[in-house]
Amino acid sequence: MSDRRIEVALRVRYAETDALGVAYHSNYFIWFEVARSEYFRVVVGESPAEFFQHYGMPLTEASARFFKPCRYDDLLIVTARVSDLRSRSIEFEYEVRRKEDQVLLAIGHTSHLCVDSEGKPCRIPVLVREALAG
Amino acid sequence: MSDRRIEVALRVRYAETDALGVAYHSNYFIWFEVARSEYFRVVVGESPAEFFQHYGMPLTEASARFFKPCRYDDLLIVTARVSDLRSRSIEFEYEVRRKEDQVLLAIGHTSHLCVDSEGKPCRIPVLVREALAG
Amino acid sequence: MSDRRIEVALRVRYAETDALGVAYHSNYFIWFEVARSEYFRVVVGESPAEFFQHYGMPLTEASARFFKPCRYDDLLIVTARVSDLRSRSIEFEYEVRRKEDQVLLAIGHTSHLCVDSEGKPCRIPVLVREALAG
Amino acid sequence: MSDRRIEVALRVRYAETDALGVAYHSNYFIWFEVARSEYFRVVVGESPAEFFQHYGMPLTEASARFFKPCRYDDLLIVTARVSDLRSRSIEFEYEVRRKEDQVLLAIGHTSHLCVDSEGKPCRIPVLVREALAG
Repeated sequence: MSDRRIEVALRVRYAETDALGVAYHSNYFIWFEVARSEYFRVVVGESPAEFFQHYGMPLTEASARFFKPCRYDDLLIVTARVSDLRSRSIEFEYEVRRKEDQVLLAIGHTSHLCVDSEGKPCRIPVLVREALAG
Repeated sequence: MSDRRIEVALRVRYAETDALGVAYHSNYFIWFEVARSEYFRVVVGESPAEFFQHYGMPLTEASARFFKPCRYDDLLIVTARVSDLRSRSIEFEYEVRRKEDQVLLAIGHTSHLCVDSEGKPCRIPVLVREALAG
Repeated sequence: MSDRRIEVALRVRYAETDALGVAYHSNYFIWFEVARSEYFRVVVGESPAEFFQHYGMPLTEASARFFKPCRYDDLLIVTARVSDLRSRSIEFEYEVRRKEDQVLLAIGHTSHLCVDSEGKPCRIPVLVREALAG
Repeated sequence: MSDRRIEVALRVRYAETDALGVAYHSNYFIWFEVARSEYFRVVVGESPAEFFQHYGMPLTEASARFFKPCRYDDLLIVTARVSDLRSRSIEFEYEVRRKEDQVLLAIGHTSHLCVDSEGKPCRIPVLVREALAG
């Protein structure tokens, strides 16, 4: 398994905050997706949009643990790495840190099944799989 | 033009609030959509899901005026009516009221173009048009 | 631990769908919140808005497993139950079913820490705790 | 009035797409906010987070016209400029272009009222006002 980590920087949007003054938890799963998309772009060397025209990677599982909150306009670093890779499925792990002090705010994982354009489970294309495996 | 108004009740979700403690403004446009869907169900007498398998109603315009904020768990009444109906386009108007005291929180409008399953502008199907026209 | 289950019905909004034509996964965590709020309203017998003016219940963990997708306008039943209750923390479990055929679409859980209005961990108020414990 | 335009680049997230395969319209209002926040950072020379700890800028109006759709992973350029500035209110105008071909996808505007930390309408602080006026 590759130890490659891809990171993206993003700012907490006002829309993502809630009445507690912190980023609402469901947004972390969206930030995971932003890092996962970047992983495809960088590691697979392909526009994620192109890949996702022919294949889907629907989630079968998602989890997160939240250690510290973040607030509007905080600059975050979200990292993604592949933690498991099989012929038809893939698992990513994520970390969310505040850029300023590198404090770890949350970790998470998502599991995905590869499906074809008709939604049927299928093998991950070999070139994509090799790229993901590093 | 029909004067028919369709209303839906919905509660402000915590996810919809922001750091000011009130519902974030972009959610009003989603609530408009909830009322618009209900309009199709009730007036056109058809599942909106079925209609939207064959046609699209992408927005060409959207606007809102916000008079009073609303907060987590507030029960709202959102009403929709057709304010303009042409062969290929339709316009809806909306009101958002707090149910408890009927205070008007916001008004809005959206304009839509009818497109076929390939995204090309097309005439609104005649049965749908007649139903919408009341 | 109470075996009480509270359920809410909700329709998938168009805004909640994604380019795969199904509800995007992060929305399930928002639907969990809708059921959790209802749990407070029914079981604790108190407006969740009032409780959340004085206390917070930030998430420390969240997870979900997704079995089947759902689509625009699908009517869903989301159930919540308390699966663990301690002096300062609480855990909920959720199920999401399509109402029409009762197919189980997803399950999930969230863990929460009780905090006071200054964000410090605190005991869950005794009346709330007793109500939650059934 | 300053003619200064501030722009931000952002990618369409999968979460922002809908079942039509395009970015759902309410997200444009969130993108407007991202550009508006950047405007504060660059022109006012102040962290928007700091400003918004003491003041609020709730929307009184929002509108958008949508010309062309955009899709998952499209790179967008969103520009913001101040189109009207009064002692207690401010209006922004926005443009959304696809970066690749500079095609104009949408335009919009938002009107805001300045409020203090208690939510009462107040004058925009003079230093902020002068910076905004260019």
